[in-house]
Amino acid sequence: MADVLKLKCSVCGLEYSPDEVMYTCPTCGQVGTVDVLYNYDALKHVLDRDELSGSPVQSMWRYRDLLPLPGYATVPPLRVGNTPMYEAPRLAGELGLAAAWVKDDGANPTGSLKDRASAMIVARAKAHGVTTVSTASTGNAAAALAGIGASASGMNIIIFVPAAAPEAKIAQLLVYGARVLLVEGTYDVAFDLCYAMCVQEGWYCRNTGINPYTIEGKKTAAFEIAEAFNWDVPDVVVVSVGDGNIIAGVHKGFYDLLHMGWITRIPRLIGVQAQGSSPLVHAWENGINAVDMQPVEVSTIADSISAGLPRDRAKALRAVRQTGGAFVAVPDDEIIASIPALARATGVFSEPSSAVVYAGARRAVELGYIRPDERVVFLLTGNGLKDVKRAQESVGKGMRVAPTLDAVRHALQMETR
Amino acid sequence: MADVLKLKCSVCGLEYSPDEVMYTCPTCGQVGTVDVLYNYDALKHVLDRDELSGSPVQSMWRYRDLLPLPGYATVPPLRVGNTPMYEAPRLAGELGLAAAWVKDDGANPTGSLKDRASAMIVARAKAHGVTTVSTASTGNAAAALAGIGASASGMNIIIFVPAAAPEAKIAQLLVYGARVLLVEGTYDVAFDLCYAMCVQEGWYCRNTGINPYTIEGKKTAAFEIAEAFNWDVPDVVVVSVGDGNIIAGVHKGFYDLLHMGWITRIPRLIGVQAQGSSPLVHAWENGINAVDMQPVEVSTIADSISAGLPRDRAKALRAVRQTGGAFVAVPDDEIIASIPALARATGVFSEPSSAVVYAGARRAVELGYIRPDERVVFLLTGNGLKDVKRAQESVGKGMRVAPTLDAVRHALQMETR
Repeated sequence: MADVLKLKCSVCGLEYSPDEVMYTCPTCGQVGTVDVLYNYDALKHVLDRDELSGSPVQSMWRYRDLLPLPGYATVPPLRVGNTPMYEAPRLAGELGLAAAWVKDDGANPTGSLKDRASAMIVARAKAHGVTTVSTASTGNAAAALAGIGASASGMNIIIFVPAAAPEAKIAQLLVYGARVLLVEGTYDVAFDLCYAMCVQEGWYCRNTGINPYTIEGKKTAAFEIAEAFNWDVPDVVVVSVGDGNIIAGVHKGFYDLLHMGWITRIPRLIGVQAQGSSPLVHAWENGINAVDMQPVEVSTIADSISAGLPRDRAKALRAVRQTGGAFVAVPDDEIIASIPALARATGVFSEPSSAVVYAGARRAVELGYIRPDERVVFLLTGNGLKDVKRAQESVGKGMRVAPTLDAVRHALQMETR
Repeated sequence: MADVLKLKCSVCGLEYSPDEVMYTCPTCGQVGTVDVLYNYDALKHVLDRDELSGSPVQSMWRYRDLLPLPGYATVPPLRVGNTPMYEAPRLAGELGLAAAWVKDDGANPTGSLKDRASAMIVARAKAHGVTTVSTASTGNAAAALAGIGASASGMNIIIFVPAAAPEAKIAQLLVYGARVLLVEGTYDVAFDLCYAMCVQEGWYCRNTGINPYTIEGKKTAAFEIAEAFNWDVPDVVVVSVGDGNIIAGVHKGFYDLLHMGWITRIPRLIGVQAQGSSPLVHAWENGINAVDMQPVEVSTIADSISAGLPRDRAKALRAVRQTGGAFVAVPDDEIIASIPALARATGVFSEPSSAVVYAGARRAVELGYIRPDERVVFLLTGNGLKDVKRAQESVGKGMRVAPTLDAVRHALQMETR
């Protein structure tokens, strides 16, 4: 394990000891998400990246020495991480790139990258003797917490959702045995209520942008990308952005590796937002800082990246600004069209908030944010089976035929015999 | 690769050279599914199971030396197989077993074990210069073929479905770029039409129970189980059964390993059917042979294992009879209840036709087909995200609360402060 050296606010830069702060910066409030930092100089002397490459562990826990978990701790059994990365020459061809890869995090146990965060949080809770973990979410984070929680014995998972959340999404949580509270109010009301209960009852709060350790789980996606490239990292990583926690996690992973001396630079990070929910695009284009951002009305079919005031806005803006990346926005029709485009070019079926990177990369190439000679990794964050309804809108229907060979040949525009 | 020595009919026992027969036995017709057999004595001298254990390949292709694929062939890029196996002590406890494991094949790229078969078939088609692969299916086999086909460049995938098939299932195929023919007729009509087109046009037919090589892909699930147990195989493997192709594939995998001398016995195979679609249970209980089985009307919510005259009935019956296993049937309400029971005990969310093994094992224990001191592996064949609607029926609703701490405490039956 890696001992946490300090927690540092991403907004004001104040530093705290790991025991001093549990969630966000006491000075800045919730905008002040904190970084979990290690004594990299000490770790450098005991860890060796080549030794790591020989590890037989086929999950995110192969990087345990760089994760904030005591040595005695057990990790939840579900196999999170170690997701496949596929070279995608047809995708590269379509987008005019030298080389492209897709990293399929929809292959995680509950179908999304959020499993990395939930595994980290559940492991930390267990290690500290906390048996209740809670979050406010209707989406992938809740499913991940419920599923990972079910795999670990003796954990109580409590999920707060707005009462209007779709029943199918809630069903999955209940299947895993989570207790689900349908809060009469908005998502933000559910979020605050969850947080307040956690603080009062000593539950561990997994809320995105509150708990600094979700990013410590998500950063393993960057570790895997770097390791797959034999530590010669790609030029660009494209990732969809809602609350900003994933792009911040990817950034943190590369940051750790850079400070370990295992990589020599950080890829440029391109954040893709839905046009109907693009406050970070706006802030980035206009040089607005995280603390000055105001909530905006949002509307997009990509519900997993819908966020009017992104919880991790400070770290998300920093990830793009510090790496010389960019934020781009794409409209809903292009998001929908990205689903089959990506599936046909790669064989990977992604949900809208994940497939959006296809249209986003196209935009980034047009705008010159990605150059044609670059090596680009697309981080796919969620499985297409999460939202088959939207996928249905992206395609036509089959061809109706009478049950005869000639009818089939005619439909397929083959020569009739 | 392993050179195929001969094809042998599972019904009449006649042997053919690999080039002589492409699909089923010419003498017996479609009931006569054939086995793909190798020169095990020759393979024994060149292959070493311990060498295999050191293979870095993280997919079913780690067993390529025991698979029927020419050395020059490329395999589809999607990472099929190498699915996780989790020890499941709580599951064992609930069912009164000494030890239990779940093998989560829902973690495959398109969400089901069928990916193993489709990867094998697409690889063989490519190796033989055939660029069109076709099947009749509305379910997991079609999704697997469409997805694996999309990942391999230059493949045309044509799927025949009954015109009445649900649009959501068809959408997934179209997303992957498969051409889908909605045949005005039943599933059997679509099946026959697909087969006839394949024969006439030289397409490769992936139809279950027609193509003997689907089993050669599926057998890798057994290889993985054996390897995970360090070749000291479990006492029992429980698997759901519709057409019988999966249980036959599991049997074939252990058969290969036994004839290689890598294992010393084959686990007893317990096949679980839905009560409303249980012709194999009936045949097994009444000593009826495959050739004498007649089609029956079926009705179950577990659509992936609904089959009135199982296509691979000969091999399925043999798998259970030769291993001293059993067939059991469970009613739909128990299938639905199995979904949360399994998810809560293991963290794995399975579709109905996969979760059914939970209720099936309980029945098998009651009937004495599984003894309490045995080590049991549950093969989970499909991801729960494939059928969220059924999962929804298995659970209640969340608890509606006003947005106050007291309301939350009350709902969770905690002491109010």
